[in-house]
Amino acid sequence: MYQSTNLSFSSSFTHRSLLERRFRPRRPPKPLYYTPSCVSSDPKSSDDSIDLSSKLVSLLKAVPNWSDGIKERRMRQKRSLYTHENWVRHRSSLRHLRHVSSSASSRVILSLIPPVFFFTTVAVLIAGYNSAVGFELLPSFFPVLRASPLPYQLTAPALALLLVFRTEASYSRFEQGRKAWVKIITGTNDLARQVVSSVNGSSGDDELIIRDALLRYIAAFPVALKCHVIYGSDIADDLRSVVEEDDLSLILKSKHRPRCVIQFISQSLQLLNLDSTKIDTLESKMLQLQEGIGVCDQLMGIPIPLSYTRLTSRFLVLWHLTLPVILWDDCHWNVVPATFISAASLFCIEEVGVLIEEPFSMLALDELCDMVLSNIDEAVKSEKVIRNRIIAKKRMHEIKHSSNGWHKS
Amino acid sequence: MYQSTNLSFSSSFTHRSLLERRFRPRRPPKPLYYTPSCVSSDPKSSDDSIDLSSKLVSLLKAVPNWSDGIKERRMRQKRSLYTHENWVRHRSSLRHLRHVSSSASSRVILSLIPPVFFFTTVAVLIAGYNSAVGFELLPSFFPVLRASPLPYQLTAPALALLLVFRTEASYSRFEQGRKAWVKIITGTNDLARQVVSSVNGSSGDDELIIRDALLRYIAAFPVALKCHVIYGSDIADDLRSVVEEDDLSLILKSKHRPRCVIQFISQSLQLLNLDSTKIDTLESKMLQLQEGIGVCDQLMGIPIPLSYTRLTSRFLVLWHLTLPVILWDDCHWNVVPATFISAASLFCIEEVGVLIEEPFSMLALDELCDMVLSNIDEAVKSEKVIRNRIIAKKRMHEIKHSSNGWHKS
Amino acid sequence: MYQSTNLSFSSSFTHRSLLERRFRPRRPPKPLYYTPSCVSSDPKSSDDSIDLSSKLVSLLKAVPNWSDGIKERRMRQKRSLYTHENWVRHRSSLRHLRHVSSSASSRVILSLIPPVFFFTTVAVLIAGYNSAVGFELLPSFFPVLRASPLPYQLTAPALALLLVFRTEASYSRFEQGRKAWVKIITGTNDLARQVVSSVNGSSGDDELIIRDALLRYIAAFPVALKCHVIYGSDIADDLRSVVEEDDLSLILKSKHRPRCVIQFISQSLQLLNLDSTKIDTLESKMLQLQEGIGVCDQLMGIPIPLSYTRLTSRFLVLWHLTLPVILWDDCHWNVVPATFISAASLFCIEEVGVLIEEPFSMLALDELCDMVLSNIDEAVKSEKVIRNRIIAKKRMHEIKHSSNGWHKS
Amino acid sequence: MYQSTNLSFSSSFTHRSLLERRFRPRRPPKPLYYTPSCVSSDPKSSDDSIDLSSKLVSLLKAVPNWSDGIKERRMRQKRSLYTHENWVRHRSSLRHLRHVSSSASSRVILSLIPPVFFFTTVAVLIAGYNSAVGFELLPSFFPVLRASPLPYQLTAPALALLLVFRTEASYSRFEQGRKAWVKIITGTNDLARQVVSSVNGSSGDDELIIRDALLRYIAAFPVALKCHVIYGSDIADDLRSVVEEDDLSLILKSKHRPRCVIQFISQSLQLLNLDSTKIDTLESKMLQLQEGIGVCDQLMGIPIPLSYTRLTSRFLVLWHLTLPVILWDDCHWNVVPATFISAASLFCIEEVGVLIEEPFSMLALDELCDMVLSNIDEAVKSEKVIRNRIIAKKRMHEIKHSSNGWHKS
Amino acid sequence: MYQSTNLSFSSSFTHRSLLERRFRPRRPPKPLYYTPSCVSSDPKSSDDSIDLSSKLVSLLKAVPNWSDGIKERRMRQKRSLYTHENWVRHRSSLRHLRHVSSSASSRVILSLIPPVFFFTTVAVLIAGYNSAVGFELLPSFFPVLRASPLPYQLTAPALALLLVFRTEASYSRFEQGRKAWVKIITGTNDLARQVVSSVNGSSGDDELIIRDALLRYIAAFPVALKCHVIYGSDIADDLRSVVEEDDLSLILKSKHRPRCVIQFISQSLQLLNLDSTKIDTLESKMLQLQEGIGVCDQLMGIPIPLSYTRLTSRFLVLWHLTLPVILWDDCHWNVVPATFISAASLFCIEEVGVLIEEPFSMLALDELCDMVLSNIDEAVKSEKVIRNRIIAKKRMHEIKHSSNGWHKS
Repeated sequence: MYQSTNLSFSSSFTHRSLLERRFRPRRPPKPLYYTPSCVSSDPKSSDDSIDLSSKLVSLLKAVPNWSDGIKERRMRQKRSLYTHENWVRHRSSLRHLRHVSSSASSRVILSLIPPVFFFTTVAVLIAGYNSAVGFELLPSFFPVLRASPLPYQLTAPALALLLVFRTEASYSRFEQGRKAWVKIITGTNDLARQVVSSVNGSSGDDELIIRDALLRYIAAFPVALKCHVIYGSDIADDLRSVVEEDDLSLILKSKHRPRCVIQFISQSLQLLNLDSTKIDTLESKMLQLQEGIGVCDQLMGIPIPLSYTRLTSRFLVLWHLTLPVILWDDCHWNVVPATFISAASLFCIEEVGVLIEEPFSMLALDELCDMVLSNIDEAVKSEKVIRNRIIAKKRMHEIKHSSNGWHKS
Repeated sequence: MYQSTNLSFSSSFTHRSLLERRFRPRRPPKPLYYTPSCVSSDPKSSDDSIDLSSKLVSLLKAVPNWSDGIKERRMRQKRSLYTHENWVRHRSSLRHLRHVSSSASSRVILSLIPPVFFFTTVAVLIAGYNSAVGFELLPSFFPVLRASPLPYQLTAPALALLLVFRTEASYSRFEQGRKAWVKIITGTNDLARQVVSSVNGSSGDDELIIRDALLRYIAAFPVALKCHVIYGSDIADDLRSVVEEDDLSLILKSKHRPRCVIQFISQSLQLLNLDSTKIDTLESKMLQLQEGIGVCDQLMGIPIPLSYTRLTSRFLVLWHLTLPVILWDDCHWNVVPATFISAASLFCIEEVGVLIEEPFSMLALDELCDMVLSNIDEAVKSEKVIRNRIIAKKRMHEIKHSSNGWHKS
Repeated sequence: MYQSTNLSFSSSFTHRSLLERRFRPRRPPKPLYYTPSCVSSDPKSSDDSIDLSSKLVSLLKAVPNWSDGIKERRMRQKRSLYTHENWVRHRSSLRHLRHVSSSASSRVILSLIPPVFFFTTVAVLIAGYNSAVGFELLPSFFPVLRASPLPYQLTAPALALLLVFRTEASYSRFEQGRKAWVKIITGTNDLARQVVSSVNGSSGDDELIIRDALLRYIAAFPVALKCHVIYGSDIADDLRSVVEEDDLSLILKSKHRPRCVIQFISQSLQLLNLDSTKIDTLESKMLQLQEGIGVCDQLMGIPIPLSYTRLTSRFLVLWHLTLPVILWDDCHWNVVPATFISAASLFCIEEVGVLIEEPFSMLALDELCDMVLSNIDEAVKSEKVIRNRIIAKKRMHEIKHSSNGWHKS
Repeated sequence: MYQSTNLSFSSSFTHRSLLERRFRPRRPPKPLYYTPSCVSSDPKSSDDSIDLSSKLVSLLKAVPNWSDGIKERRMRQKRSLYTHENWVRHRSSLRHLRHVSSSASSRVILSLIPPVFFFTTVAVLIAGYNSAVGFELLPSFFPVLRASPLPYQLTAPALALLLVFRTEASYSRFEQGRKAWVKIITGTNDLARQVVSSVNGSSGDDELIIRDALLRYIAAFPVALKCHVIYGSDIADDLRSVVEEDDLSLILKSKHRPRCVIQFISQSLQLLNLDSTKIDTLESKMLQLQEGIGVCDQLMGIPIPLSYTRLTSRFLVLWHLTLPVILWDDCHWNVVPATFISAASLFCIEEVGVLIEEPFSMLALDELCDMVLSNIDEAVKSEKVIRNRIIAKKRMHEIKHSSNGWHKS
Repeated sequence: MYQSTNLSFSSSFTHRSLLERRFRPRRPPKPLYYTPSCVSSDPKSSDDSIDLSSKLVSLLKAVPNWSDGIKERRMRQKRSLYTHENWVRHRSSLRHLRHVSSSASSRVILSLIPPVFFFTTVAVLIAGYNSAVGFELLPSFFPVLRASPLPYQLTAPALALLLVFRTEASYSRFEQGRKAWVKIITGTNDLARQVVSSVNGSSGDDELIIRDALLRYIAAFPVALKCHVIYGSDIADDLRSVVEEDDLSLILKSKHRPRCVIQFISQSLQLLNLDSTKIDTLESKMLQLQEGIGVCDQLMGIPIPLSYTRLTSRFLVLWHLTLPVILWDDCHWNVVPATFISAASLFCIEEVGVLIEEPFSMLALDELCDMVLSNIDEAVKSEKVIRNRIIAKKRMHEIKHSSNGWHKS
């Protein structure tokens, strides 16, 4: 009777929570945090807040704010793990068509609108001015803005390399984040598995209560870390279905919640009635979780050196501001589409580099956390069944003296 | 008598299964999964399913679907591990000839047909239009589509770098997959070896039954993980020859089969009559298997950031759409072969990058799993022989007092 | 009573010190160390110290010294860890505007003034000379300085690659430094956590005194290492709030302070009344701290091979000295802005590479050390609360026989 | 007496074997395996074996076969480890002269003859045809084969990057192979050292017999692995001087010889009369050896994705086939040397990439294995001497009460 | 009394040795080894030693030999670790001036003289010949040597990439060497620290004698390894101040000295009167030292594949030999400075790549070894002081019942 209730309960419990969370849309993304507030909290812009100019500024900032708003909203959307079907679609030869047709709704492309629009406008102005000079609509002391493209040809490889290496550095942070989460998930699963196999049905009732709590804390760890690294997540909401209410309140009070969960795990382990070697082994596994915290904290806390990021950004701006001038001789009014294409391409590379620099919102952390929960759930359920199966096999063999396999009895 | 039966059985058993699997063609690749279904399940295309346009769409999609079909079929073909002979062939100076002559049947090249065909057609259209304008077949307000190649010369290095770095990122995923499997295979072999050497002939019959089961579970782990990561594999079929039928049914019912096999291993270990330190050592080895699962799961679940992939794809499309325009002045009708060659080369790089992004179908996992099975088989067989040999040697030396080697008696 | 005093004390203690340090500006940066002294200590320049020439030299050195002064002062400013809000700002589409508008105050850009100014002057001189020759203001045997740009086009990719790879090598040192500190912080936290959970409230008073001291030494380790790697830091000041005065004096007398702190930790561990296995486990954790010292010491002590650095620098100088000559035919007086832009861009890449080569001043080490202190503080505070909570839960369950969770009682 | 016999024997034993192997030329490289056979075993060429065409084919294949023959012969030559003198020579400024003068005998260059010869011939044909058209020797409807080089200028960076990245990927495999062998050699040495220091002179005679055998098996491991990964090596010959004849026959019968040697080591360890903790420690060291096998097996078995390799090869062929056409306008008959130089350079990069893809023949594995043998030999010899020296020192100090050093008595 | 003598002795002992070694110039670098001998030992040049030609050869070799001599002498100069002051200087904006002004004395630049001189001469000859043809000083069937630069523009990126990647590969070897030494130094320090803290003042006199010897062996290990990897170092001289004379003679007789030192450490550990678990822990730390040997041995023994190195060298030579020809049309007599600058730049990159390929002479190994010695010295000295301090604190607290810190008593 024990087993069935246990299974039925835990499975329903987990399934409910998983379904609930899977099909519940994420909370509305608290727009008050980032769109105008983070901008208006910018000290400089608020200091020189003269009436007119501030209106102008806010007008000019409307487009960037709008595109940032969309970008941040998109970043909060839940991502899901790729499946085999996704991969088939991913490598289908129609992908190029799909990518192009989805351009209009692409978060990256929307957030490119402000700079690309700006540089295209500059190109239009320069082309207009040069045309005006060419048609002698302006006094003759206005020079045509033109220059030899040679210096650009010489520095183009440096710009390209810098841009792409910057993107590579961001990508390697993405990879670090991904690998850190491989370790966190593996560490959590391994710890849970060892707890399940160490404290099994033959243990006393007290043990099972502690084990139950311990497994909940273990399952809570990735959730707490996820909420720690993802902006605007509601840890109380996510953890409510995993740990009990009074534990939750303690965790919420803590300054660093994932570390607090680790303390819960550590203390529960100590109270588990195991021999000290086993506890030491299990304790030592928590180093992996701590390392996970460490990597995540530093990926969050320390970006790519800002001087590097700023260099790339300034290089790009300088390049595109002068691009219409150096292209004038070759392209005339074609400088406008040329500047547009160049700005779109190069700023897009930079944008992608900046977006994946903080990788946690790109990883499907929600689904990874759900998987941990579901794994622990299944491990608890199947542990007794598997153990009985093997014992039964042993007995059966004792009776039948079966002789197939690597063993002859 | 014990030994001989054991050996004969297990060797025949293993050989049968290996041969059976090696020379049995893979199941037909279930074409219903991916060719039209994954496309028609695309919500957008099904929504605007008006009669005529849907026909047109399906007509236009015929070529991509056909090439995807071939590509997927090819991806399921079993790969085999390279041998010394393959390497000699691989570095033979005739390889270029071989590669070129095999182009027509190349999966990569077939899947390039849709985009390359499309861009070549666009080039033909643009060249035709420009010729028409040139011969004044069109009203004079139709401009010749031409532009200066300078902006392209300036951004060409960025495109090339982006493309090749994207491919590099995919290749590093391939390497991660390969290294994860090195660890999985090594971990499995090491675990099996330690089990074999810990529970040897001097143990009781019960022990040997559990050991037998345990070795089967260990051998089943890479098979289960292989089926987990390879699309369209039939785990029941592959595992049938390794584990018993009732264990198999349990494994099949599990949500995450490789983890379920790990639980079988863990529980068998606990039931093995070893001292607790030894069991702890063996248990700790399973972390390596769990890490293997973790790496595989995440390589599967988390692709290269989609914004990166899409950026490359859009950049390529934009570049090739405008290429005929910027080449017109220099090349005239040569824009057609030029666009063809450029599209073939650059899309081929992109295609290879996308193909190796999900690396598991490129690794010879079937053969690796077979090797584990055969290693375990041989370890069981030879264990007793080797042990006896060494004991015999000890005795002989005791008699002969031989004095050669690093030891004087 | 024990607990409340403990908590109140330690929290006030820590908070005071943290606040104190957080809002206290860093000490004035001892300008005497680096601006003129390091230059005048340069043996060559002091040897040929003739009156006039030395004045001239000091005049010429005024600008570099001024810009170095600013640069070093900026490098000592405390950096803080990025938060979610910083990230939102970091990827906002206004970032380009922000980066460009902050150029004037940028440390990197200020330190570029000397070389860029120099090469622009050279360009002006060459352009002036060439113009003078062109307008025949000079005797006719003065040749126009001009050359074909072809050799530059051929070597431009090599220069770009060299420059960007040099920057990459520096960036990989930055990453090594960051990762070393992830390990140091993780190691420190893990050691503290294990000490806290091993020596808990049930231990004797003596134990708690040693534990108190031990936790202080553990918290002192990252601070000592930080002061070891950051130029001009005042270790006495930073450590005063962490360790006691007499320990501090011993640490200050040591040649290698972080190693001395490790010895304090090691000796305290030995005096802790734990069983030898536990002590061994804790001792072995100190390897991680030692590795941290090792990595930091070598990142500090061994720069990127100087031949590599000098090669890049000389290549850049040679390139920009001759750039006006090879650009003359194409650009005429535009060589001046062209040289300016090229020098600004390429020297900026080099400057960033040199700045992040010694990464410790770019990492927010102060805040990381404060976090360790605050973590230890919170761990001590919450340890008893959490333990009691779990014990209470166990008892409650014993009474209520609650039946929710993975366990049915 | 024990010691001297032991020393004299083992040293003579080892020296004999080393000398014997060092100065014995490698067996003739079994040409029948690869030159014509691997080609004629190619199913396609043997299927369409019509008389004349097969002769033609074999004639055309003569050159590639000849150059492959030389290449394979060279690859089997024993390489030796670099010494300090080699390094002085390696960085001597005469190295360029040496490299150029050794071109004619270079294996890489010889194997480039077929493709370079082919593409130069094509260039000659195209140049001849174009000249014929130019001098109007052909009917006027034959067009001059020429095209604008612009598309090539745009894709040249992509080709260069692809080629060099492909080479980098191969080089990283070389590094993996090298690092795997660092681990294998270190693991072997460490295991041997621990065995020597655990089972020393004070052990019984039986122990020493097993230890003797065990050390031989340990020394045999790298030899067996070397023969496993190097094509055409004669394991029987190499192992004969290390292990006894009857062990050898068992090893030779095994399917995977290095694993068989590991089983010998494992079984000997179990039979050694040590306490179980020590045996566990030594057993766990074998994981390192198994990892070595794993890495070697997979470097052998899984090449760089063939689609990547083929892409590079096809890109190169396509590029060079059309190169004379696009160069015609600029170079006329200079297309022949230009094509020659371009083909020689780029195919050479590709060739080097392919050669180091399978790195084991490039590593001085023979000498590494000899070093292991010699290290074990010396460890056995010196172990007793060193132990006696330290004991003597202890006694002497007891008498003299010397007071120098870190200790005062 | 014990302590003071101990301290005074060891500190004086260590200081003497350190000072002695620090301010003693390195031994004269045995010029006989490398300048003419290594050249004349070259079999080819000695075989065809005809009178006149041999004189000519030796004359032509004079310049390379002279520059190699200087280079090797410079490589033996002791390098010192960077300090904070070095870093300030390193990033000073005067660095470019410093680098340029030190060019004349740069080892790298001196060793470039032979090839750069050669190629500049070739350029002069070709320019002279072409001028002669141009002024019709030669019979008219002498053609002007000129060619289109287009093929060079197409292959320039490949050359640049190859060159820079080759340098990167060397740099990654430098990093491996550096990291190996981080591990060696960390491992040595950690081993010494654990020995010091395990065998402390409370141990018997015998123990302290062995500990004394053991610490000396541990300190000798990095010295022995340093002498093993640095060419022309005198191990007897360096080790004399660390180990005793008779131990030294044994070490010198060994074939592989660092391994011999490890055996000394291992045997001393066995003779130390500790419990077996502790000895096992300490023994296992020696794996790190062995790994250090392994990495150093292989970095020394296995260079970057020679085919790669030769390819780069040949590519460079071929490129520069033909450069004057392809530049003639554009540059006329400017081919001479153009060839000079191109050769200087590209050969310089190659030279740096070759120099850092064998990284040990670039690392400040002498100072690292001294630091280990000084660390061990200080650890021994301070161990007792710190222990007493903590014990005193415990006692004082027992009396005063102080209440500050994380603990209230």
